[in-house]
Amino acid sequence: MAHANSQVLDVEGSTNGFVRTLPELRTPFLIFLGDVQSNVLAKTGMGVHHWRPERCLGQLRLDGCKADLGLPDMTVAKAVEAGAGSLLLGAAPDGGRIYDHWLPVLREALKHGLDIVSGFHTKLADNPELVALARENRTKLIDVRVPPDAIPVATGRRRSGKRLLTVGTDCAVGKKYTALALEKGLQQREIDAQFRATGQTGILIAGRGIPMDSVVSDFLSGAAEQLTPDRAPDHWDIIEGQGSLYHPAYAAVSLGLLHGSQPDVIVLCHDVARATIDDYPDFPIPDLGACVSRYLSLARLTNPDVRCAGISLNTSSLDECEKREAVRQVSLATGLPCCDPVAHGVDILIDSILLDR
Amino acid sequence: MAHANSQVLDVEGSTNGFVRTLPELRTPFLIFLGDVQSNVLAKTGMGVHHWRPERCLGQLRLDGCKADLGLPDMTVAKAVEAGAGSLLLGAAPDGGRIYDHWLPVLREALKHGLDIVSGFHTKLADNPELVALARENRTKLIDVRVPPDAIPVATGRRRSGKRLLTVGTDCAVGKKYTALALEKGLQQREIDAQFRATGQTGILIAGRGIPMDSVVSDFLSGAAEQLTPDRAPDHWDIIEGQGSLYHPAYAAVSLGLLHGSQPDVIVLCHDVARATIDDYPDFPIPDLGACVSRYLSLARLTNPDVRCAGISLNTSSLDECEKREAVRQVSLATGLPCCDPVAHGVDILIDSILLDR
Repeated sequence: MAHANSQVLDVEGSTNGFVRTLPELRTPFLIFLGDVQSNVLAKTGMGVHHWRPERCLGQLRLDGCKADLGLPDMTVAKAVEAGAGSLLLGAAPDGGRIYDHWLPVLREALKHGLDIVSGFHTKLADNPELVALARENRTKLIDVRVPPDAIPVATGRRRSGKRLLTVGTDCAVGKKYTALALEKGLQQREIDAQFRATGQTGILIAGRGIPMDSVVSDFLSGAAEQLTPDRAPDHWDIIEGQGSLYHPAYAAVSLGLLHGSQPDVIVLCHDVARATIDDYPDFPIPDLGACVSRYLSLARLTNPDVRCAGISLNTSSLDECEKREAVRQVSLATGLPCCDPVAHGVDILIDSILLDR
Repeated sequence: MAHANSQVLDVEGSTNGFVRTLPELRTPFLIFLGDVQSNVLAKTGMGVHHWRPERCLGQLRLDGCKADLGLPDMTVAKAVEAGAGSLLLGAAPDGGRIYDHWLPVLREALKHGLDIVSGFHTKLADNPELVALARENRTKLIDVRVPPDAIPVATGRRRSGKRLLTVGTDCAVGKKYTALALEKGLQQREIDAQFRATGQTGILIAGRGIPMDSVVSDFLSGAAEQLTPDRAPDHWDIIEGQGSLYHPAYAAVSLGLLHGSQPDVIVLCHDVARATIDDYPDFPIPDLGACVSRYLSLARLTNPDVRCAGISLNTSSLDECEKREAVRQVSLATGLPCCDPVAHGVDILIDSILLDR
């Protein structure tokens, strides 16, 4: 993965084995949402704003943008005046590529002295014009979605410590949110737990991780093993899931992460508003019970003792009364603990996670 | 995937969409086997020698090498004298990396005017010393395992034409061999069929393809869709499988290829000599019936009509009488047609593949 220009930019940070730690980012962020058509497609911005609000100053949206973080809208110039340190690319369209018509905003940001932080597959460092502008203006281009080099092939060896992986019926249903909420909840009970980021937004929030979806496929499970090495026996790695086994494009990423992370416990995440896979209307969301069975059955390859602690339900589309009813129905149908972490917290899931202590 | 040096080397060949066609290779080959410990770990050399014997001149083995293609052993100098055009790296150790102690042979080959052809993850073009030597000696470095750039994300859309995918209980059990034998057998019955290569050896044999295991994982199923686009309704794409759903390191590659290639028919390949996954003694080879069920169940996501046409059994470890008995037992146990393509041909599988015409 020779990114020819990366050596001129301070993008390395430190590494702990194969897990890259980001350099200190210049905050606060002006979050650029482009012209994406929903908040789901702005999930990087949404995630950073939710979990690190103190780092977020404003949002910049192009005409026709339908995402909204609830932050003040600002031009680049206004944001710089207000003290912004970086333009953070907060949109996350499918395929993870930066659109050409977004480039004028990126150029403007560099000219105004902002760093740019990106989690896209398209590398800022591969754009000679942006690299030249960054040099000229002594600003930095920070690509977050760069996998480590020379990842070893997975060994399948069982490791010490406890592992939890959030899995999903689809992309963008709450796997990262649930993992972060579980980390917080476990820590509040004085359990030694740490969130392990596997995607660009998670890495921006945690400051470190491995972007699984940009790892070369032969090394995917090996990367997941490196992310969650041997730990103290009572330590919990709370691993952010990726994609879904039911997604026609991304199931391979989900399976490689499932096998390499060897979870002791999975939590299934689901958005009640979804009837079909997002952007794939021919692909129905699976029955939740069948979905749990499939995840467990495939996870047993590397951890025969895996169990499902419950369902994390995204009910943001429902009113309070409907939320309670949806949670009750899912719990009845699957026989598993269920909650909406945003609406009701994750206590019931944590009780279930800690059951076999 | 910026391979900084690739523009100075004639490695591009032409492309048909995202499927790269290799440039004309200088034959015959001196096949370098390094010091690998079995023929399984020399499968690139084995495959090229079996399917393209007219291109193979000799083999070069280091002290302690336990692989043997049955070709005359030659030094680089002897091979050049005998008319060799290229040194082909025929070893295929796990992880696909070129060992440092092999480099003296590579340097010697370039100094003697041979091109080098490699299917390794480690790129020849990323080794400055080899690049300099190739320039000096006007020879070429040809990296076969380079995925196309900017592969689209999979759409999951059904495509016209028929598709067959060989799948496996493990790596290196006969998936490529079976696919090539089926292509040949179908063509002999005047069926319009073409082998689609997904690994470095297959690409060397066919002269084109996409190396699935080196595709970035987000684009794996998309790459499989590009490899097998819309075809004439009666055309068969015979797709080389990769890895195994039961392999702790490579199952993700298998699943991405399964979903993207949308097979109408799968053929399960198995080596009767394997009790556990090669090099993973803690991972048992699955029951064949359960294995067929799992492949079909996961394949149905993108092609609900998929069926299994039969089992391709590698019985190379058995004598003739045992071979027949093994085939009979597997057929009885699974209720599926079964044969050893090397020992008995693939007629019985082809009958089954063409059943629903």
